[in-house]
Amino acid sequence: MATLDDLDTPCLVLDRGKVAANAARLRNHLGKLGAPMRLHVKTAKSPEATALVLDGRKDPITVSTLKEAEQFLDSGYRDILYAVGFERHKLARAQALAARGAKLTLLVDSVEGAAGVTGFPVLIEIDTDGHRAGVKPSDKAQLVAIARALEANGCTAAGVMTHAGGSYNCASVDEIAAIADQERDGAVAAVNVLRRAGFPAPVVSIGSTPTATYARNLDGVTEVRAGVFVFFDLVMTGINVCRQEDIALSTLATVIGHQRDRGWILVDAGGMAMSRDRGTAKQRVDQGYGVVCDVDGRAIPGLVMTDANQEHGIVARRDGAAPPDLPVGTRLRILPNHACATAAQHEAYHVVDGGREAVATWRRFSGW
Amino acid sequence: MATLDDLDTPCLVLDRGKVAANAARLRNHLGKLGAPMRLHVKTAKSPEATALVLDGRKDPITVSTLKEAEQFLDSGYRDILYAVGFERHKLARAQALAARGAKLTLLVDSVEGAAGVTGFPVLIEIDTDGHRAGVKPSDKAQLVAIARALEANGCTAAGVMTHAGGSYNCASVDEIAAIADQERDGAVAAVNVLRRAGFPAPVVSIGSTPTATYARNLDGVTEVRAGVFVFFDLVMTGINVCRQEDIALSTLATVIGHQRDRGWILVDAGGMAMSRDRGTAKQRVDQGYGVVCDVDGRAIPGLVMTDANQEHGIVARRDGAAPPDLPVGTRLRILPNHACATAAQHEAYHVVDGGREAVATWRRFSGW
Repeated sequence: MATLDDLDTPCLVLDRGKVAANAARLRNHLGKLGAPMRLHVKTAKSPEATALVLDGRKDPITVSTLKEAEQFLDSGYRDILYAVGFERHKLARAQALAARGAKLTLLVDSVEGAAGVTGFPVLIEIDTDGHRAGVKPSDKAQLVAIARALEANGCTAAGVMTHAGGSYNCASVDEIAAIADQERDGAVAAVNVLRRAGFPAPVVSIGSTPTATYARNLDGVTEVRAGVFVFFDLVMTGINVCRQEDIALSTLATVIGHQRDRGWILVDAGGMAMSRDRGTAKQRVDQGYGVVCDVDGRAIPGLVMTDANQEHGIVARRDGAAPPDLPVGTRLRILPNHACATAAQHEAYHVVDGGREAVATWRRFSGW
Repeated sequence: MATLDDLDTPCLVLDRGKVAANAARLRNHLGKLGAPMRLHVKTAKSPEATALVLDGRKDPITVSTLKEAEQFLDSGYRDILYAVGFERHKLARAQALAARGAKLTLLVDSVEGAAGVTGFPVLIEIDTDGHRAGVKPSDKAQLVAIARALEANGCTAAGVMTHAGGSYNCASVDEIAAIADQERDGAVAAVNVLRRAGFPAPVVSIGSTPTATYARNLDGVTEVRAGVFVFFDLVMTGINVCRQEDIALSTLATVIGHQRDRGWILVDAGGMAMSRDRGTAKQRVDQGYGVVCDVDGRAIPGLVMTDANQEHGIVARRDGAAPPDLPVGTRLRILPNHACATAAQHEAYHVVDGGREAVATWRRFSGW
């Protein structure tokens, strides 16, 4: 079996023990609050990684693309929520999924959107924090109008869904917990509007990794969606949703040169291998394009990828001091700002179990 | 054949007439200066697009990964420069390419790097603008030491290569032309050091799309590398290397909703479909995640993608005014900040010839 000393670089390294621990932690927390999880599979896009997270159960999942729905249906997952506003051009593919046995739930946030879908259970997207799509919970007339349009069009107004994406910008755990309350309160208020208007609307779907992690009360919530927690990343570390040592994903890179007068180490992982995500740029600690670790995953003090060209990464001390001597050929592991974005640049995970041995290769897919 | 009105979104649209015109313009310019082009294939990563750019000739090419070398060798391109600092872990794959008939040239910028390669023609990377890797042209002892190490190790010290990536940050055409002079002067000075020391060093390889476009004199240069000019993008428009209407690549997206009180139009192309590249953020005009055009490719005044989640784009007027009414289902085309990065998020180009009809589908590859 290959080891991290001889794999072709750049490539992804995934520590499966960390994935399992991250999954157990969130499952235990949600279990105590009495809310089942509907895992978001958009981060890993890998049946093997998903099987690990779900202990082999074919539990309900969330997808961000119809390709994810198609691929995961092929792997035996039938209860699928497509959690992006639906539009009629996608109807034929959605119908093909249903014809193959998927229990596919769709999402809309307008009467106009509802007009384009027929024959599916549909959730109404609720905007609880102003960061993206959705109807405000206070807009009762709009909520009822969408539910009526859905039913008139042969759909079931199955409930509500919200995503507190604003939680990614929180400065403290207390702030995340407050956003989690707001997310739940808004979703429950909105579904109650539908129920009072006579729609059964059984589903109250909420979630984001930060709010799922720090929710204190999920009364009235029927499912919690979260995705990035399976791998975690520096953005999540930056808002105290995980520790840096919980990050299961890294990019393996090789030192290819130096510019010693500038304190630079050049590696063969650049913007293509890390993605161009700079999600920590606006956080308290800007991690550049990623935190640099040794081949065993131990962070090298002060060392980050400060800049990136397409296939070159520039590694330097954050404080401008001289970096340690890392000769050409040295293997490094770079922790990502945003796991979803970095993983999407690659076609496979090289799986390790704490050590350097690659114990498995898990394929992942991309595209739509 | 599909049209832009019915393709699944998000997807890439490539206008082949614009690609051909971009290719002809640079070829004519370099022809006048007497320097042949060594096309960089890292932007398109597509044999069909490359065949269009090169009029079907199997001319010398430049690659940024060994996978590009392998794929393009499969398509009949034999003269290949791998223009990233070489490191010994990649030697077996390089040797396999040579065994299959590739005339593969490698690159190093240190004695340490030279020690890891044997049996290839190798260029020495020269740093003419301080932006990345390479030996300074003035560092004569280092240049000769690397050439000697190469020859001692069974390689040919074949010449020099430099990339004036600093030209991407220029404020004016005059500044780019000055950087082009500096790029040529540095490369020629460095190769003369080698030649005076007794190495034939026939190759002087320079290039970047901006410097190739505005070079005024290429005496002493034996080849010019350029890549992004085949598609062009908003970063290149922002430094006056192309007009916005020369951009051949766009992401086709569909309107999925609105937040009218905020002036937002939501589309189904987000950070995954556009990439997270924000290369215009530091330019005179920040184009967000891209300039929004109608389905026929005409820019809609003032409209840009101001923010992006994984599969959601937020489109709004740059000045905060109310956007035009674009109903759910409207098709839009978004011009990319950085064509290499946006193209890499997709698996195919849907090719048009000015109109809405998709006249061909060209596969592209990713990964290493």
